[in-house]
Amino acid sequence: MNTNIKSSKVPVGVLGGSGYTGLELLRVLRGHDGVDVRFATSDSEALHPTPIPGLAFVPVAEARLEDVEVVFLCVPHGEAAVWVERNGARVGRVVDMTTDHRPGSGREAGAVYGLPEVTPREVAEARLVANPGCYPTGVILSLLPLVRAGLVDASRPIMVNAASGVTGAGRSPKRELLFAEVVGDFRPYGLGNDHRHLPEMRAALPGLQLLFVPHLLPVARGILETIALPVATGVDAARVKTVWRDVYGGCGAVRVEDHAPALAEVVETDLLALAVFDNVGLEGSTLTLVAALDNLGKGAAGQAVQNMNLMLGFESGRGTRC
Amino acid sequence: MNTNIKSSKVPVGVLGGSGYTGLELLRVLRGHDGVDVRFATSDSEALHPTPIPGLAFVPVAEARLEDVEVVFLCVPHGEAAVWVERNGARVGRVVDMTTDHRPGSGREAGAVYGLPEVTPREVAEARLVANPGCYPTGVILSLLPLVRAGLVDASRPIMVNAASGVTGAGRSPKRELLFAEVVGDFRPYGLGNDHRHLPEMRAALPGLQLLFVPHLLPVARGILETIALPVATGVDAARVKTVWRDVYGGCGAVRVEDHAPALAEVVETDLLALAVFDNVGLEGSTLTLVAALDNLGKGAAGQAVQNMNLMLGFESGRGTRC
Amino acid sequence: MNTNIKSSKVPVGVLGGSGYTGLELLRVLRGHDGVDVRFATSDSEALHPTPIPGLAFVPVAEARLEDVEVVFLCVPHGEAAVWVERNGARVGRVVDMTTDHRPGSGREAGAVYGLPEVTPREVAEARLVANPGCYPTGVILSLLPLVRAGLVDASRPIMVNAASGVTGAGRSPKRELLFAEVVGDFRPYGLGNDHRHLPEMRAALPGLQLLFVPHLLPVARGILETIALPVATGVDAARVKTVWRDVYGGCGAVRVEDHAPALAEVVETDLLALAVFDNVGLEGSTLTLVAALDNLGKGAAGQAVQNMNLMLGFESGRGTRC
Amino acid sequence: MNTNIKSSKVPVGVLGGSGYTGLELLRVLRGHDGVDVRFATSDSEALHPTPIPGLAFVPVAEARLEDVEVVFLCVPHGEAAVWVERNGARVGRVVDMTTDHRPGSGREAGAVYGLPEVTPREVAEARLVANPGCYPTGVILSLLPLVRAGLVDASRPIMVNAASGVTGAGRSPKRELLFAEVVGDFRPYGLGNDHRHLPEMRAALPGLQLLFVPHLLPVARGILETIALPVATGVDAARVKTVWRDVYGGCGAVRVEDHAPALAEVVETDLLALAVFDNVGLEGSTLTLVAALDNLGKGAAGQAVQNMNLMLGFESGRGTRC
Repeated sequence: MNTNIKSSKVPVGVLGGSGYTGLELLRVLRGHDGVDVRFATSDSEALHPTPIPGLAFVPVAEARLEDVEVVFLCVPHGEAAVWVERNGARVGRVVDMTTDHRPGSGREAGAVYGLPEVTPREVAEARLVANPGCYPTGVILSLLPLVRAGLVDASRPIMVNAASGVTGAGRSPKRELLFAEVVGDFRPYGLGNDHRHLPEMRAALPGLQLLFVPHLLPVARGILETIALPVATGVDAARVKTVWRDVYGGCGAVRVEDHAPALAEVVETDLLALAVFDNVGLEGSTLTLVAALDNLGKGAAGQAVQNMNLMLGFESGRGTRC
Repeated sequence: MNTNIKSSKVPVGVLGGSGYTGLELLRVLRGHDGVDVRFATSDSEALHPTPIPGLAFVPVAEARLEDVEVVFLCVPHGEAAVWVERNGARVGRVVDMTTDHRPGSGREAGAVYGLPEVTPREVAEARLVANPGCYPTGVILSLLPLVRAGLVDASRPIMVNAASGVTGAGRSPKRELLFAEVVGDFRPYGLGNDHRHLPEMRAALPGLQLLFVPHLLPVARGILETIALPVATGVDAARVKTVWRDVYGGCGAVRVEDHAPALAEVVETDLLALAVFDNVGLEGSTLTLVAALDNLGKGAAGQAVQNMNLMLGFESGRGTRC
Repeated sequence: MNTNIKSSKVPVGVLGGSGYTGLELLRVLRGHDGVDVRFATSDSEALHPTPIPGLAFVPVAEARLEDVEVVFLCVPHGEAAVWVERNGARVGRVVDMTTDHRPGSGREAGAVYGLPEVTPREVAEARLVANPGCYPTGVILSLLPLVRAGLVDASRPIMVNAASGVTGAGRSPKRELLFAEVVGDFRPYGLGNDHRHLPEMRAALPGLQLLFVPHLLPVARGILETIALPVATGVDAARVKTVWRDVYGGCGAVRVEDHAPALAEVVETDLLALAVFDNVGLEGSTLTLVAALDNLGKGAAGQAVQNMNLMLGFESGRGTRC
Repeated sequence: MNTNIKSSKVPVGVLGGSGYTGLELLRVLRGHDGVDVRFATSDSEALHPTPIPGLAFVPVAEARLEDVEVVFLCVPHGEAAVWVERNGARVGRVVDMTTDHRPGSGREAGAVYGLPEVTPREVAEARLVANPGCYPTGVILSLLPLVRAGLVDASRPIMVNAASGVTGAGRSPKRELLFAEVVGDFRPYGLGNDHRHLPEMRAALPGLQLLFVPHLLPVARGILETIALPVATGVDAARVKTVWRDVYGGCGAVRVEDHAPALAEVVETDLLALAVFDNVGLEGSTLTLVAALDNLGKGAAGQAVQNMNLMLGFESGRGTRC
């Protein structure tokens, strides 16, 4: 790290800042009083303003990696791994927001999977954090504590029905993402249980039979996941809530709710809202879980900032919208 | 029936024509060359034009029941049963589009449940048809042929994850249906497996363990149902498709697709699109079914017109948008 | 024209059928009982189904021009002029739906500007019809009869404030047309009075000082134009309505309304709805006109079919949604 | 004022906090470090949480007016005047967010019209501030400096074409505000130049011939106003920009832009964005102005907080989203 005379803020940089994830990350960092964004790159939007007053995008070739302590990678999937190989040694700490180093990617060996509520100590010491995917964040944080507490009946499939806003599909122009194609529509995709996020979920939740069906919602942002959870004998919603509350506490980024959360409650926040319900006729057999988060918030930028905070010794939620 | 000298079209009437269901029914009937709509009632919109050129709404007290052969009931749930008790004897045939006479209502005894593809002969002879609910239509037509063919493993719960456009909630002003509340949102409701449509589904699909979770979509119309179906050993998607195609044939209101259907393909039609997929890692255990329909089309008005057609000796799909 | 043994329907073809305009044209032609669509081209969607049952898209090289009597050009702006130069002699009649031969294009000499309500006889005899633009259709049909009747005060500017759904901007993927960019937004464009449709309006309405400000609406389809019209002394809304009704009659594609029309009344139709209002405080000086149409209906496909009808000796509105 | 021992923050209260305006005001006040919201009333939502952590709505009868220095009135139009008559003497300062005391209301005598950029000193000393309407804010702040600088040709009408999101119409359930009625639609209303906001605009801009046509947009929030402005000889866009920049400076709530602003740039902010354009063919005659603001931000809550700031001796923009 080079000396930072002007401020006691930690200098950070963002590679690939003009996609939806990068823009959101810059918005969150703008409100963070402990860091100073030194650069944000975008070849296509070079010289245009970023969401941070006074900071314009620069071409990636002009990113001064030496000036920063943490680099966020918001580049296209596949490019992050290449970048880390070539440039990883030049920067202190990296938060990779792509799929490249996540569990199941085949390159997870050198990285810590960044779940701030689950592995805070590993994240704190990591040089390379693989920031979790938006869909996996809700699924893993819902299920992992229940698996560990022995509440899940792993002999039966778990259906995860998920719906996401279109920013989850990126900002590159594609016909199927045009307004006139999406408005008034709703459709499942990735049928056949082979979505690219499944290896990540399976790696984090070994031994479960996950059935994951994502859908595209006609909204800009937000993910809602409705899960039919087979449980061990005698397990009810109250028991699940107790386990969640023990793990996540009464505050922070994960909130355990008594009502069914709606997208509108979590968009433009960095929260994950969880709820659980017993089912008439299926008592003691199958519960319904609901997880709601903003795919750009807790599903991307918010969680990345939590991870950065842990890496820098800050409080996990600092600067986030929780 | 009184003599209809002017035309050979069958005279029909609509009670409660200014809600979303009634308006859609009038639009479908407008395009039907075998019937003549003699009246459509609406106390709140009396004298205002209906979707049928030259026909204005009349107060319910002015409906000339004697003039028509078939009456459609699009009144609020609860009012249809009262009406049938008082007026049923005055009209030849009734299609009740409310929940009042559906299976599970306690009043189904005097009515035929109107699934045109399943019970065409019973409908043809019925004096009172209970038109199925929008959610149940997709669930029942998906599952019933598979149950009968012995493909379903009834020992495990079936998760039905459903999403509906807001016209499914009616046209009475409610805060939670305002544009500013719905836009950008997506939320589950009826958590706990006690939606008012469940008795209807359970009655039509006895012996199954249904878990039904509906969601409210930010679209005007359309229902998409994604079903995790536990199957008997050795059953795969190809087998399901064969059964469906045997039952529903290659045309008509129910289409078996090879791709995952989207809402946009079925809104403003009277079609039900079905698809089925094998799941990686869950082969021979759990299939994913997708059913898409317009809640106002096959889920209400389209199916009501199919039922009317059968009652009048017409071809089932006449005048529908299939 | 080759002999058409199988049917008495007129054979027609569509070049460039997979954009929004081409798709809508195919939908209208599907409901037309006097023509038979022999081909629809799309290099990108070759072999995929068109909206017409049994007809798949073919590459443009495979279009059998000799088989048809009328060709519709729904190709990108600029390509129609090239096509007509090279292939015009091979086909009997052409309806060009691009800007290429419209007034003000510099190539209007060889074409008839196709306003079915204004120049029906010229259209009937034309070999090449330039189908009007979506924005100009509403402006010209509103103003032309009033100019001819001497009601307009041409010494003052006429402000035309227009708003269009996104299908007006085409189906080619562009970032600014992505769902997440358009939803919740509304913006003017073409500021400075130099929209590409202005030459067309100016040529059709010589001597007027038009100020045209278009806006992009977060809807898929529809155009609404609100016009502040300076009028000659003593002219009021009633006088305007009389003139319009004299010209457009009581039926057909142009409807004179007594209420302010809304987009929802005209989308998915081929209607143009017109209304006019006196203004408190500006009596006898400035009226407000409102014109509403579907940019894909009366603003493109509907009007093209009207023009084709006139060219083929059919009634103007045949097969349209009026 | 009673002694406020716990904090040096100024105690304030909100009457009618559960409508869209009241909720937005509470959100802005939540981020204000100089005030402490002591109560927010709502009879219908009593005991439910407000946007401010730890504060629940109370019935209006339980509002402790004695505890606060400033009261905001977000009650229905008409009720504010009654309230001020009965309770005005009990509270130090009032910001009335209804139309009741605005210019043209007939009750403006006792109130200061609260335009923070125009009349900061009057606001600072006012006991009762009439917070401007959402539509008038954009129109008046656009035009007033130009009128004062003698740039406007008052002999010709000024067309103000305005479009607003649906929160501008309030949160009371009405059929025409239901999602299924608004989505995909766009419509003018208040035709005939008699919108209820016109007296306010006319009173603030005497001598101008305003023609105001509002439209309802299918978005939740935001107002965009496009104005055809007749100017005195020789006046061009550059001149207008200079005047605006002289009045509004380089920062604060009013921004003079070089591009056409879009709703998306101002929603969820308290900014007003202004732009101006010369028009081809109308040079020196008519300019186009564009004003964009959030109807709930600078059009309501943001401006109310600016006014409160001035009344309390704070910097005008403190706590606002500018």
